Amino acid sequence: MPDPQAIADAVRDAMWPRDRASQALGMAVSAIGPGTATLTMTVRADMLNGHGSCHGGLITALADSCFAFACNAANELTVASGFSVDIVAPAFEGDRLTAIGRERHRSNRTGVYDVEVSNQHGRRIALFRGQSYAMKGRAVVEGLPLPAAPARRTGAA
Amino acid sequence: MPDPQAIADAVRDAMWPRDRASQALGMAVSAIGPGTATLTMTVRADMLNGHGSCHGGLITALADSCFAFACNAANELTVASGFSVDIVAPAFEGDRLTAIGRERHRSNRTGVYDVEVSNQHGRRIALFRGQSYAMKGRAVVEGLPLPAAPARRTGAA
Amino acid sequence: MPDPQAIADAVRDAMWPRDRASQALGMAVSAIGPGTATLTMTVRADMLNGHGSCHGGLITALADSCFAFACNAANELTVASGFSVDIVAPAFEGDRLTAIGRERHRSNRTGVYDVEVSNQHGRRIALFRGQSYAMKGRAVVEGLPLPAAPARRTGAA
Amino acid sequence: MPDPQAIADAVRDAMWPRDRASQALGMAVSAIGPGTATLTMTVRADMLNGHGSCHGGLITALADSCFAFACNAANELTVASGFSVDIVAPAFEGDRLTAIGRERHRSNRTGVYDVEVSNQHGRRIALFRGQSYAMKGRAVVEGLPLPAAPARRTGAA
Repeated sequence: MPDPQAIADAVRDAMWPRDRASQALGMAVSAIGPGTATLTMTVRADMLNGHGSCHGGLITALADSCFAFACNAANELTVASGFSVDIVAPAFEGDRLTAIGRERHRSNRTGVYDVEVSNQHGRRIALFRGQSYAMKGRAVVEGLPLPAAPARRTGAA
Repeated sequence: MPDPQAIADAVRDAMWPRDRASQALGMAVSAIGPGTATLTMTVRADMLNGHGSCHGGLITALADSCFAFACNAANELTVASGFSVDIVAPAFEGDRLTAIGRERHRSNRTGVYDVEVSNQHGRRIALFRGQSYAMKGRAVVEGLPLPAAPARRTGAA
Repeated sequence: MPDPQAIADAVRDAMWPRDRASQALGMAVSAIGPGTATLTMTVRADMLNGHGSCHGGLITALADSCFAFACNAANELTVASGFSVDIVAPAFEGDRLTAIGRERHRSNRTGVYDVEVSNQHGRRIALFRGQSYAMKGRAVVEGLPLPAAPARRTGAA
Repeated sequence: MPDPQAIADAVRDAMWPRDRASQALGMAVSAIGPGTATLTMTVRADMLNGHGSCHGGLITALADSCFAFACNAANELTVASGFSVDIVAPAFEGDRLTAIGRERHRSNRTGVYDVEVSNQHGRRIALFRGQSYAMKGRAVVEGLPLPAAPARRTGAA
């Protein structure tokens, strides 16, 4: 039976070729593991907003892709139901952004993931927190095992 | 002295040519007014994620652009400090998305804006709520009046 | 078969006596209906924070109670999975706060609700947006019908 | 000149006696330091909602108090402008909750703080992320130094 890292690698290999948006934005997946992922993106001229800095939606797109790889890494098909973003510094043309995401919580269907986006100087650009929703029983990669079910919520929150 | 609609039109005319990100994503500003804006975007093949639906970050980019036009429409240079997004339905290739934004609150430096994104069938796709931060005294369009200062916060919240 | 308003009334009658927190905070449910609720609370001296204004968590508690009545009003047991709050003005001792909540979206298990909190002068104090999670098939009031299932999500978002 | 820990202690000593809400909810400040605070609260019967678990607003109140001590610890009067909360597990009567908060970002006027709430078994109950707004030049404790100004935002985000 494959170990979690091998499953994460297989998920990345299956998701990446289909993820045309992340490709078109010039992203790369530099690392993936159980509940975690690291993606990079360089700010292009066509990513600048009317203030001359990187469009906040595109910073978010990088964080959201990182979130997607992290929350699907266990091979259970999982989507974003929402997220919140704090933009704490601007990014400019040519900046190389790195997004590091990690799982903070996962229950039966829902999860919470944090992603931090920094520039090439290590300056923090954005803090992203995403909420995930799992399609129970549906695999990202058919033939590979699904994660064991976590403990169910035993009470109302 | 220009009326608020004329100022909003001038802000749009100044911001749009500089907003390469929104242009590259195929957006259009179909309406602007004091504290409000409407933008459209058609989902292209290069906007799809690994699940075959529109990348959440690009839905957010549409909403964020709408937010930017709405919160700058009074000619005070204003940036997004953060936002939260609920993705409530998927969007697919060819869908024509419309984002409608409006001001919900504005105090001295900070504001709150709601943006709803719907598809061509009127189905709601995403609910976005943005927090803005004004660069006091800096105009989007030099030579046009800045907004009068709103009432200051008179107490700590 | 009871109409939606009668079901909402029955839900309120069942939830309120058990909701000791809302009672202890002096709240009252002034209206409830399908997907909507209105609650009030007067700011007491023991609700003030170190800045002399109403504690943000207690403004949130009012909004969260309003959210709970609104999202349970269809008789399907529903809990808050999360929320975001913008505090836009302070509230002070003696202020009478009113929270008005309404459903913005509801799918199979998840929903989005907006709650606005205002004071007795109609000044907006807080904007709250909540995410709900339904315990499918579990009623708030046994013996009353559950809502019909909404359309399933047909794709990944 | 006082060191940052001595300033944080003095801020706690000044804020706590005035913070009637946190006192009324039975909280205690078990630690404070530069940009960080730890608070505790035991869930009482009058904190339970209609589902028999701790009211989400009161879990938020604990996190918000923790946030307030952390973001004021440098002696610059600072308020919450907003926050988002993910409730990931329920808390029940008698549970002893601990909130640990820490600064994630601070610029000229705005900051971002994360607070985690856990129960006595170390189970995570809630993830809170708060946005702060500083009243520049106003001290929490008069006579003690204010923090040096951080670097200004040098561009629009």
